[in-house]
Amino acid sequence: MEIQKLNTFIELAKSNKIKTLVVAVAQDLHVLQAVEKAVNNSIIKPILVGDKDKITTILNENNININSKSIIDIKDINKAVEKSVELIKEGKGDILMKGSISTGPLLKKVIDKENGLLKGSLLSHIAFFESPYYHKLLSVTDAAMNVSPDLNEKVAIINNAVEAYHKLGIKEPKVAIIASVEVVNPKMEATIHASLLNIMNQRNQIKGCIIDGPLALDNAISKEAATHKGINSKVAGDVDILVTPDINVGNVLYKSLNFIGGADSAAIIMGAQVPIVLTSRADSENTKFMSISLAAAMQ
Amino acid sequence: MEIQKLNTFIELAKSNKIKTLVVAVAQDLHVLQAVEKAVNNSIIKPILVGDKDKITTILNENNININSKSIIDIKDINKAVEKSVELIKEGKGDILMKGSISTGPLLKKVIDKENGLLKGSLLSHIAFFESPYYHKLLSVTDAAMNVSPDLNEKVAIINNAVEAYHKLGIKEPKVAIIASVEVVNPKMEATIHASLLNIMNQRNQIKGCIIDGPLALDNAISKEAATHKGINSKVAGDVDILVTPDINVGNVLYKSLNFIGGADSAAIIMGAQVPIVLTSRADSENTKFMSISLAAAMQ
Repeated sequence: MEIQKLNTFIELAKSNKIKTLVVAVAQDLHVLQAVEKAVNNSIIKPILVGDKDKITTILNENNININSKSIIDIKDINKAVEKSVELIKEGKGDILMKGSISTGPLLKKVIDKENGLLKGSLLSHIAFFESPYYHKLLSVTDAAMNVSPDLNEKVAIINNAVEAYHKLGIKEPKVAIIASVEVVNPKMEATIHASLLNIMNQRNQIKGCIIDGPLALDNAISKEAATHKGINSKVAGDVDILVTPDINVGNVLYKSLNFIGGADSAAIIMGAQVPIVLTSRADSENTKFMSISLAAAMQ
Repeated sequence: MEIQKLNTFIELAKSNKIKTLVVAVAQDLHVLQAVEKAVNNSIIKPILVGDKDKITTILNENNININSKSIIDIKDINKAVEKSVELIKEGKGDILMKGSISTGPLLKKVIDKENGLLKGSLLSHIAFFESPYYHKLLSVTDAAMNVSPDLNEKVAIINNAVEAYHKLGIKEPKVAIIASVEVVNPKMEATIHASLLNIMNQRNQIKGCIIDGPLALDNAISKEAATHKGINSKVAGDVDILVTPDINVGNVLYKSLNFIGGADSAAIIMGAQVPIVLTSRADSENTKFMSISLAAAMQ
């Protein structure tokens, strides 16, 4: 199976049992607009945790049609976050979404050892791109959360991304570990990590995917570019997941595709008991809605 | 002044006095094809240093029309490189181009302290992109040469790039120092370097350009994205030069634009007494020709 368009997430979500989306501190216009669109598309059922007065005002002033029975009135921001996490922990919600609160305080509650939602060793960000220059969806991890992951952290980042693919019905995604060259260069840590991750995959220490690396981005994207370099690879030209050496590379790739590459995107945080939707104000309306669809598309 | 299309390099080159292009170890089909195109466009006069028999055979077998009087017959590869560098040093050539030789051995002769061509403290790579998603040419430095430049090396990289713009007639290029965030984060070296380079520009330690940083790529490219973040900047939305934190970021950005961003590009090495054209086999024909045009466009 292969997913070519972000719109496929909507279809997948519709074919799933309807998911419950818990919005933490829901008094945010743009978030509520995206939630309304997801409700109208029959993708999710919302629980809006937050200041009921503020939420109702936003809904009324902007003609947003979400049933006010879905609101749980908690004015204190910290308590609203705690309640949202608790709802997920109790199995009453399938997706967590950030509302009018900074990312830091929200994720602090999520990774809390006692009352949090962390499943593996870390949370990581994965973004899916529909590019006019590639034949299927392409994903990038990690563009937003892990600054300079060490080898073990990269294993966790890959496992999170692979789990996302499995939950979307793609059994063996192709993973490229990106560096600026395709050979081992002991002076470039990215090539050392890539080589080790490659062997870890061959030895079944990382499963459920096909890893190749180190690969430069062109080798990963283009079979022809790989052949020019004499690289024989199952991943080259058909990559699903691009794993970047650090946040600087991930972030520039994410923004290059979105802002100067003609691509549309959707993104989520993996590694918790449920997918987490963190949209930022700079994201387009479509990105916000597609990110909810992505989370709801997961089995 | 603002350059919108790579084709402008051809016009600029034609308006300059015709430049002499010295090709080191010229027995390479793709290089000779690009040289022929540049000759036919009246952009350059070639001197082909290399194995005359091999060069002549390639010219004849592929109907490439370059006057054989332009060949200097030196069979030994090392001596051909030395002769090429010497011609530049003597003022007999205006541009150096790599032929059938690896980059390492060629640049070793270029940076040789006694007989080389190094002008400042280092050589650096600058690539110009014509993207369907940006209103003018955009450049990236350094995607290919300097692995993890320290602060002083970044100053030299910026000076090389700014010199390239000045030689193209653009007096005060706008420079963004890229990081993954737009704020100072002491744990992220890219943001520290960016802040220091920003102040060095304000204090006239780096001249002839307007620097802003740290900026994430979206803030640099898009005024709207910068405004969302409350960034008031002369560079945001109108950047010319993107300076990347390291080669991993530069390389992924270069390849993202070329291979999955719909852009065309031209690239040169700056920092020597003359621009150096290093095309690789994976480059398109157009990139090779445009890189010669870029070098010839410089005053």
